[in-house]
Parts: sequence; structure tokens; C-alpha cells
Amino acid sequence: MDQNQLKKAAAEYAVRFVEDGMNLGLGTGSTVTYMVAALAKRAQDENMELTCVTTSSRTKRQAEGLGLRVVELNEVDRLDLTIDGADEIDANYQGIKGGGAAHTMEKIVATASDQVIWIVDESKMVETLGKFPLPVEVFDYGLTQITERLAEQGLNPVLRLDENKEPVRTHFKNLVLDLNVGQIADPHALADQLDHEVGLVEHGLFLDMVNKVIVGTPDGPKLIDHIR
Amino acid sequence: MDQNQLKKAAAEYAVRFVEDGMNLGLGTGSTVTYMVAALAKRAQDENMELTCVTTSSRTKRQAEGLGLRVVELNEVDRLDLTIDGADEIDANYQGIKGGGAAHTMEKIVATASDQVIWIVDESKMVETLGKFPLPVEVFDYGLTQITERLAEQGLNPVLRLDENKEPVRTHFKNLVLDLNVGQIADPHALADQLDHEVGLVEHGLFLDMVNKVIVGTPDGPKLIDHIR
Repeated sequence: MDQNQLKKAAAEYAVRFVEDGMNLGLGTGSTVTYMVAALAKRAQDENMELTCVTTSSRTKRQAEGLGLRVVELNEVDRLDLTIDGADEIDANYQGIKGGGAAHTMEKIVATASDQVIWIVDESKMVETLGKFPLPVEVFDYGLTQITERLAEQGLNPVLRLDENKEPVRTHFKNLVLDLNVGQIADPHALADQLDHEVGLVEHGLFLDMVNKVIVGTPDGPKLIDHIR
Repeated sequence: MDQNQLKKAAAEYAVRFVEDGMNLGLGTGSTVTYMVAALAKRAQDENMELTCVTTSSRTKRQAEGLGLRVVELNEVDRLDLTIDGADEIDANYQGIKGGGAAHTMEKIVATASDQVIWIVDESKMVETLGKFPLPVEVFDYGLTQITERLAEQGLNPVLRLDENKEPVRTHFKNLVLDLNVGQIADPHALADQLDHEVGLVEHGLFLDMVNKVIVGTPDGPKLIDHIR
């Protein structure tokens, strides 16, 4: 099975945890695209009333196009459940997100949710985080200085560029630095360090945030439950 | 002497610390307005070459209008000196800023500066911080949830409105919550708590950041030097 089939199977499995009347957070990314399609189908088949909040204009367009009700995050008190992808998940179910430059909105939504499910293909499961660079969103104002400070801390920041070699902009019109940190032995210590960095809007470490992980494997979707 | 005369005297005293060739950070506010006027005069009288970075469009307009050279923060490596106001300064020279909703840019500039001078009238000097509310910049996205979380922590957040009862917007198009926290016995603990808050862009606690404070008093400007 190719990676897309694994993603699709995990995504379709996830929608069984959705219940009628829920306020739902919808993440961003290729796996989430499969999930939104399955969610819309189930909502229609079972005539469910769902209220959805999205973390990108892309997900918003897809969800609305498929007939799901999308509102602003500020219009709901809390979210019952958020389903999102992840770029990496370690053995303690700590994650990295931000490959799609949407991690600030995704973290705000995850923080507002009672339950969080991550859906991934098995290639995202690692022993220790750090296989890929860690994304951080930073202000344009002072980019020179924050890049220098992160470099001094040995975090090897690289400004993310798009296919036209232009800097990638987030929803909030900020920039993304990818930190080439290698293996992240202590993600909490790194998160704490980055939380204190002035000019850094949000980092891609998602710690102690997920309740269930659904992993697409060649043997079918594997549910890891009761994580916290 | 009225408060404006005290501010003006402190502001004019501060420019003696400016040296030819410096990269300067210019803050925002009524006291800074006096300082920029005095700075422009000294630069012209003494034919000084200065490169200035501003923390608001207001200060930028004033500085450029008076013939000072203003560049983007990203165009310089470091700043030699930043001169800014403060809303409150405690007995340990910890400060609160953000009354003008520019504290995120002001903190980025202060962090990029080798030396920081605060210029204030004597009414800003307090034993313990917390005479006025503590400003925090937050994203519009998730305002409902972060307001609720800060309220649960006993921080009494109030959305800042302008004279037309519209929410105040920062340079980055975000919102400001004023936290009514009363006396801040341990500013480092509160700063740490707020640094970890998802959806909170930057708070107004400026800790361990200032090197000199110049206080306008009826007996003349008082210099507090060698703070750190």
C-alpha cells in the first residue's frame, strides 16, 4: 500500500469518534483532506449536526464545499474534538507540526479542544523527534536578530522559501524558520526555551496535547488510545 | 512642574548618551516624542551620523520628518542603544509597557539592543508593579478561548477598546487584553506563565531589560545607572 492509502485509512477510521452535535476542530494537510471527505459523508448519511472550526482557508473551502457548517473559533466556547495530522510523533506521543506553516492556528485549536486525535501514516512515528526540521513562526520585524539568536543557540535556523524562492507567509503574514536541531532528546526543555524567545510567535512542538493517535499501517489503521 | 515638563526634561537628558555612528532604537509614546525632537536637534547641531529603527509608524513619521535616518530593523545587525518610555518601573527596575499597544515591537527592539534606557516622569516609579493593568497582545483567532483561560487563572482580562468602542488593533492586526492582576509580587513567575500561553503573542512585562532609567523629577532629571 502506498502512503496515501495508509493516510486515507487512518483518516476514515478517525471519523467514528465524531458524535452528533459536536463542535469539531479540523486540522490541515493531506491526511486531513481525506478525513474531511469522510466526515462530510458520515454527517450526510447520518444526518448529524456538526459545527466545524478550521485551521486554514484550504480546509475551510473543502469543508464548506462538502456541506459542513463552518464557524469562526470565536463563535464557540470550546471544541469537543479536534482531528489533525502531525509531521512526527515520538514514543511518548509528543509531536511536531508546522510542515504546512499552519501550526499556530492548529495549536490554538488543539488548546481549545477537550480531545485531540492525530491521524498519520506509519512513516510519521519515530522513537525520538527531530527526523525533520522543527518549524517556528517568527515576525518579519526583527527577523535578522532572531535568526542570529537562534543560530547562537545552535538551532540552525533556515528561512522557509516557496517554489518561487519567496519567503513562505503564514495566515498571520509572518515567516517560518525551520530549525535543524537533529534529535530532540528533551522536547519540553526545547519548547520552554522557544516559548521565552521574543519575536518568535509559535513553535511546532505539540507536547502533552494528543489523546488518541490513529496510525495507518499495511495491516490496517492502528488506534492508540488513552494516551492522556 | 507639570508631568509634561518632567517627561521633557528626562527625554532631553537621555540624548547625551547617544554617540556618533550609533544604531538607535526609538520607542513610542509621549516621552519618546520629546526625546526624538531633542535627538534630531543634537544630531543636526553636531552633524552626527545616526541610523534609527522605530517601533511605531508614529515615531517613524516624526523621526523622518525631523531629518533622522530611519531604516528597517532587519537592515541592521544589532542596535547600540534603545531609548523608550515605560508605563511602570518597580524597585528592581522591572517594567511594564504596552499602554500604547506597541509592546511587541518595543520588546523585539529592546531585545536587539546592547543598551536600553527608559525615560519616565516620576509618577511611573512604583515599589511593586501592578498599579495599572498589564497589557498582552493576543490573536483574534481564539480570542474567546484565551480570554476564558486567562480569566480562569484569575487574571481578569478586559479587551481594550478605542474611543469608538472598537477593539484596539496592534501593528500586527492583533488585539490587546488588559489584565487586571493587582500587585505583581513575582513578575518573573507571571512572565513565565504568560510566555507559555498559546494564542498570546507577547505580554507587557519587560524584565531584566533596562540598563539606565532617567526619571523626571521637580529637582531635575535623575539618572539611575549601572542597573545591569
